[in-house]
Amino acid sequence: MNNNLTMLTDFYQLTMADGHLNAEHNDIAVFDLFYRSNPFGNGYSIFAGLKQIVEYIENLEFTDDDITYLSRFDFSKKFLNYLKDFKFTGDIYAMPEGTVVFPNEPLIRVEAPIIEAQIIETTLLNIINHQSLIATKAARIVEVAGEDNVLEFGLRRGHGPSAGLYGARAAVLAGCKGTSNVMAGKDFGVPVSGTHAHSWIMSFESEATAFLVYGQMFPNACILLVDTYDTLKSGVPNAIKTFKYLQSKGKLNGLYGIRLDSGDLAYLSKEARKMLDDAGFYDAKIVASNDLDEHIIAALKQQGAKIDLWGVGTNLITAKDDPAFGAVYKLAEYNGKHKIKISENVIKVTNPGKKQVVRIYSGTPTFPENILADLIILDGEKINKKEDLTIFDPKDTWKKTTFKSGEYYTREMLEPMLINGKTTSYGDYAKRKTISVMKNYCKTQKDRLWPEYKRLLNPHIMKVDLSQQLYDLKMSLLNEEV
Amino acid sequence: MNNNLTMLTDFYQLTMADGHLNAEHNDIAVFDLFYRSNPFGNGYSIFAGLKQIVEYIENLEFTDDDITYLSRFDFSKKFLNYLKDFKFTGDIYAMPEGTVVFPNEPLIRVEAPIIEAQIIETTLLNIINHQSLIATKAARIVEVAGEDNVLEFGLRRGHGPSAGLYGARAAVLAGCKGTSNVMAGKDFGVPVSGTHAHSWIMSFESEATAFLVYGQMFPNACILLVDTYDTLKSGVPNAIKTFKYLQSKGKLNGLYGIRLDSGDLAYLSKEARKMLDDAGFYDAKIVASNDLDEHIIAALKQQGAKIDLWGVGTNLITAKDDPAFGAVYKLAEYNGKHKIKISENVIKVTNPGKKQVVRIYSGTPTFPENILADLIILDGEKINKKEDLTIFDPKDTWKKTTFKSGEYYTREMLEPMLINGKTTSYGDYAKRKTISVMKNYCKTQKDRLWPEYKRLLNPHIMKVDLSQQLYDLKMSLLNEEV
Repeated sequence: MNNNLTMLTDFYQLTMADGHLNAEHNDIAVFDLFYRSNPFGNGYSIFAGLKQIVEYIENLEFTDDDITYLSRFDFSKKFLNYLKDFKFTGDIYAMPEGTVVFPNEPLIRVEAPIIEAQIIETTLLNIINHQSLIATKAARIVEVAGEDNVLEFGLRRGHGPSAGLYGARAAVLAGCKGTSNVMAGKDFGVPVSGTHAHSWIMSFESEATAFLVYGQMFPNACILLVDTYDTLKSGVPNAIKTFKYLQSKGKLNGLYGIRLDSGDLAYLSKEARKMLDDAGFYDAKIVASNDLDEHIIAALKQQGAKIDLWGVGTNLITAKDDPAFGAVYKLAEYNGKHKIKISENVIKVTNPGKKQVVRIYSGTPTFPENILADLIILDGEKINKKEDLTIFDPKDTWKKTTFKSGEYYTREMLEPMLINGKTTSYGDYAKRKTISVMKNYCKTQKDRLWPEYKRLLNPHIMKVDLSQQLYDLKMSLLNEEV
Repeated sequence: MNNNLTMLTDFYQLTMADGHLNAEHNDIAVFDLFYRSNPFGNGYSIFAGLKQIVEYIENLEFTDDDITYLSRFDFSKKFLNYLKDFKFTGDIYAMPEGTVVFPNEPLIRVEAPIIEAQIIETTLLNIINHQSLIATKAARIVEVAGEDNVLEFGLRRGHGPSAGLYGARAAVLAGCKGTSNVMAGKDFGVPVSGTHAHSWIMSFESEATAFLVYGQMFPNACILLVDTYDTLKSGVPNAIKTFKYLQSKGKLNGLYGIRLDSGDLAYLSKEARKMLDDAGFYDAKIVASNDLDEHIIAALKQQGAKIDLWGVGTNLITAKDDPAFGAVYKLAEYNGKHKIKISENVIKVTNPGKKQVVRIYSGTPTFPENILADLIILDGEKINKKEDLTIFDPKDTWKKTTFKSGEYYTREMLEPMLINGKTTSYGDYAKRKTISVMKNYCKTQKDRLWPEYKRLLNPHIMKVDLSQQLYDLKMSLLNEEV
């Protein structure tokens, strides 16, 4: 698989495209990409994947090979010809990568001839669903780890190469300190680290020799894995011997310590800490790995585990307890007509029309404070900041909240990434931005949430309300349809 | 990301490699890739990913760019130079792709200078863990669907592009009829299909018009999605009108029918079947999708749902209820010395030495019957088929089973894919084999399992025993170590 992901789409996008083309039914459509509930029972999600989306759109092209392959199916000649010059000519608005987002608000808005808007649907969802899932899981783990650093160690359990690569990037974007994934380090400039595995120890005559050889080679990042034979009887004492030796040679000047990868991490870390301290190695770090997730980290910290650095693998890279981010892509307007998808399931009724998301903050743009609510408006609606702003719950409309003029400010969250198929300066920035810039932005976004929204279980629910105009439009369409 | 996955490794593989190189400690190591328990509580797993592994090994190369990137770390000059000419020079043995496999037996055996064997570890695990996971999940779903066809529809929820692409391939390998994923169709020759989405319906003035336009374009694969507004009041009646129109024009000669994507699929399918039959469309197919998995399909079938074809998305492509296949890669021999990894957890104690897996079948090679057991032996051990074969449980050694001479035959399951770094004819075949050849092989493998091993819940456990020689070796090493 290469960088041209054009064929990474569902077959029905192509049958529909052929149908639209031949029915001369290729007017401008507006689609919203949004999701309906936060994974893991979290109070928010982290939007990730935008860089790859912009690159995907820029590289869209059906090659001659692709068209030869497609010509075996029941497509019209006209359509196969159309694909030769296929490119994206529409507009894409999106939230900045790393934004804290909430259910039911558009994260991406696509406005394009319906054929183009459909052909890109599947890849947009594939990329956003994956990267936002892992970023959100990472945010939970980082939240629980508090001041401790978290490292992403999951490549071997990720769902194939790109899951490992982009998953590592998403994890760092959302707050992990680094990853074990070398390719992610090279491609995205994320910090990478790692020392040795059990096989290093086992390949030498003894654990003591294995440690010593390693310590002499890498005295500046000397984290020794101590659980190959017996953590407290063999591993930690041998590690201490190595540290003493390096110290005697004046070489113990960098990061050093031990890694625990099995057994009871609370007990072992406390015992190991004592042994290290007793030997005078107060600044030796204790790294833990082995099936960690946010719940286990919380439990270990609550028991006073003496762990400085958490290596999280499988549960992060696969988002193990909830491995699907349910973003969907729904038609909101076609040829100027507002569209709504109704459903017996109220949560599945879509919001019609071309929309914008307004984030309401307390404070001022210069001194922003907290995210108070999100308001979905029709594109072009303006909030008059000189007036009080009252919003209401779209299901229980009697639940109202008023923000006093001067005590709130707003920001429109969907930014133009491509206009008429051309990447804008925003889109270009989305590609070029360094991971540390995005990580800082993501952290700032999380810092603007009250702790109640960040609770692991049963968090407070952020208000995502509809403007009066949008609400009225939705109700009128619902009354028409039903 | 491109086809060169060399940098897709854990950083510690490189630190260890540098260490081994400088310690002049790069002797031949034997590693086993195996897993410890079947995902989903299944009674077996399907081994998948081998084609990509062979291609990965063949394309191994650190580019100048890679080495420039790596030179920013604390690696020795000698090591960076070594990487310039890095290639794999060892042997890789593996099971054929699509083999039914069981816990604790080597699926891949790598024998190479330890640096090479380590650098490839992470990618081997990443690829096998992903593809075997999805293949195993698909096998469960296909098993429950029985005579009905299953289609893989999950690209939008897969963990990024390669998860979607290789996941679709793994699903078809393990028995799915096809996929919605166009790239998988082109790259791997798997059948692809798909008709239209809700947005097709919503973009037209009415559902009836949308169906009619579609039916006229694609009368030979006319599956109409009937749940956009109201399945039984609007969708099915409008579909029937379209079928009548196409019939009146003599065009209803191919596959046609309806797709249900929401609501109670048992009730709706039975009602829709009646309506279609009453209108004379006995051969109209009913396709179902919407959060299906093996348990829901079993429950729907048990209730007599009238569904002919199952489209499975999220739960298959993410292996949602158990999204990590836990294959590991453990040192079994170094420089001719047998190695064992001990653990307080008995299941984590490894099997030492260079091994082969012998599958014991009833019947004869010409008329094979069932898989009776797998026996892990030391490489070079021979089974004398003229004698009875007695095997014993490696934990409860008093549990013995004897196969009478003439009533069993054996097959060595690990085949040489690369020898001295060169792809063998087996390895070449692993790359070239068509998906349908592998799918047939996989089906035959599954057919050789008694139904008791294929039960969704609490299946019978296949015996995976150790030869007396291997058992004795393991015990002697355990007694040395402890």
